[in-house]
Amino acid sequence: MISKNQIKHIQSLHSKKNREEDGLFIVEGIKLVTEFIQHQKFEIAEVFATSEYIEHYKTLLINNHIPYSEISTDELKKISLLITPNQVLAVVKSSGQSLDSDLLKSATSLYLDDIRDPGNLGTIIRIADWFGIKQVICSPTCTELYNPKTLQASMGAVLRVNVVSEAFEELLPKLSGIPIYGAVLEGEPIYTSQLTKGMIVIGNEANGISKDVLKHITHHITIPAANSNGSESLNAANACAIICSEFHRQLTY
Amino acid sequence: MISKNQIKHIQSLHSKKNREEDGLFIVEGIKLVTEFIQHQKFEIAEVFATSEYIEHYKTLLINNHIPYSEISTDELKKISLLITPNQVLAVVKSSGQSLDSDLLKSATSLYLDDIRDPGNLGTIIRIADWFGIKQVICSPTCTELYNPKTLQASMGAVLRVNVVSEAFEELLPKLSGIPIYGAVLEGEPIYTSQLTKGMIVIGNEANGISKDVLKHITHHITIPAANSNGSESLNAANACAIICSEFHRQLTY
Repeated sequence: MISKNQIKHIQSLHSKKNREEDGLFIVEGIKLVTEFIQHQKFEIAEVFATSEYIEHYKTLLINNHIPYSEISTDELKKISLLITPNQVLAVVKSSGQSLDSDLLKSATSLYLDDIRDPGNLGTIIRIADWFGIKQVICSPTCTELYNPKTLQASMGAVLRVNVVSEAFEELLPKLSGIPIYGAVLEGEPIYTSQLTKGMIVIGNEANGISKDVLKHITHHITIPAANSNGSESLNAANACAIICSEFHRQLTY
Repeated sequence: MISKNQIKHIQSLHSKKNREEDGLFIVEGIKLVTEFIQHQKFEIAEVFATSEYIEHYKTLLINNHIPYSEISTDELKKISLLITPNQVLAVVKSSGQSLDSDLLKSATSLYLDDIRDPGNLGTIIRIADWFGIKQVICSPTCTELYNPKTLQASMGAVLRVNVVSEAFEELLPKLSGIPIYGAVLEGEPIYTSQLTKGMIVIGNEANGISKDVLKHITHHITIPAANSNGSESLNAANACAIICSEFHRQLTY
């Protein structure tokens, strides 16, 4: 059962403005919701699920003290953002993740400078997770972490990667002595650069790294194209995947 | 000017069925349409453009003998698939690209086994273009090349890469002696594999490489994750980007 007011409230969380005001966001689908419950990184306000989900996951819900309501498939459709809702929707508290300054020094991290596409942001967090990068710092102009498309594209990686928002200038005093890598058109080929632990800056989809950040890049790197046959660029997430892979190769293999 | 019948016809090309029946597809936006005209890979049936576009590109249109009509912004909105139409739309003939068997032997190519997402297909063609891979072969179950989302994501790379559709079994007799690389969960790490020219198979987003293709893979490769912390997979296009980058590095650097 779900009341009309509850339906209205959850529908209001389909918009960014309300998500930010209420400090809540939505997670959907059997796999992702179950991971959110198991992982306990975020506090779950309430789960709305069909009898089918509850039958399978009742013990998990009870053991983790998750408030839940059984709803019909039709009710789920009303509150879902998916074309094909999948048994369960969770309302989750977006309790702030905070910057881990020690991680900046001890490990490689990513700084995302104005990534605007939610699919790209989610995919980049998934790439970070794959390559063991534990912290992703987003510029305040990046798209929203709690956008359902970001969460869906991250495939649960948000549960394992610390994703925080901070202006580069605020970050700068904490980066003393840390190499800052930035992919630019005319840099040293990543394959022959001596890559070390540091911070990797990924720029905006259309405009690359912004001027204000560019001046602080200490290592200018490039993904070399095969030839100048007209190909102009790689998608930001693909560029990030290639760069993270090359860091992983050089530091581990 | 554009007639009601022309508007109806172009709108009909918004659907895959009609694109296939008519052998026509739509390209939109200043940059992409202009590239299509300049590149002459595909025959352009007609260009519909606002006065602004025609003013800038009249010589190009005339020199290339492109039939064109001036239309209003409102008319463009009616025939466009974009939320923000951008001055011009071209109706283009999807004259068949055909398999280049020699390229299979002389260069590295990609085989896409059931890539379903148009964004992924377009992005993968863009990656191929970047790394100088001149031929991409799609399984017949792949999403459509002429889907507007595929074309948009490819960013004009379809003009420089030969993209054909062929069942793997049909292809097989032409692959004799050619290494066939496939990314699987338990393969040799790409970083330490001795990669050579050959064919790289990229599998479906959810299910990976299909059984029927898997049995013909001669080299099983893996993108190693940093640790087994729960990250399960990479997006198909990101995996493709990393694999193509590593081939490029080993074969060129």
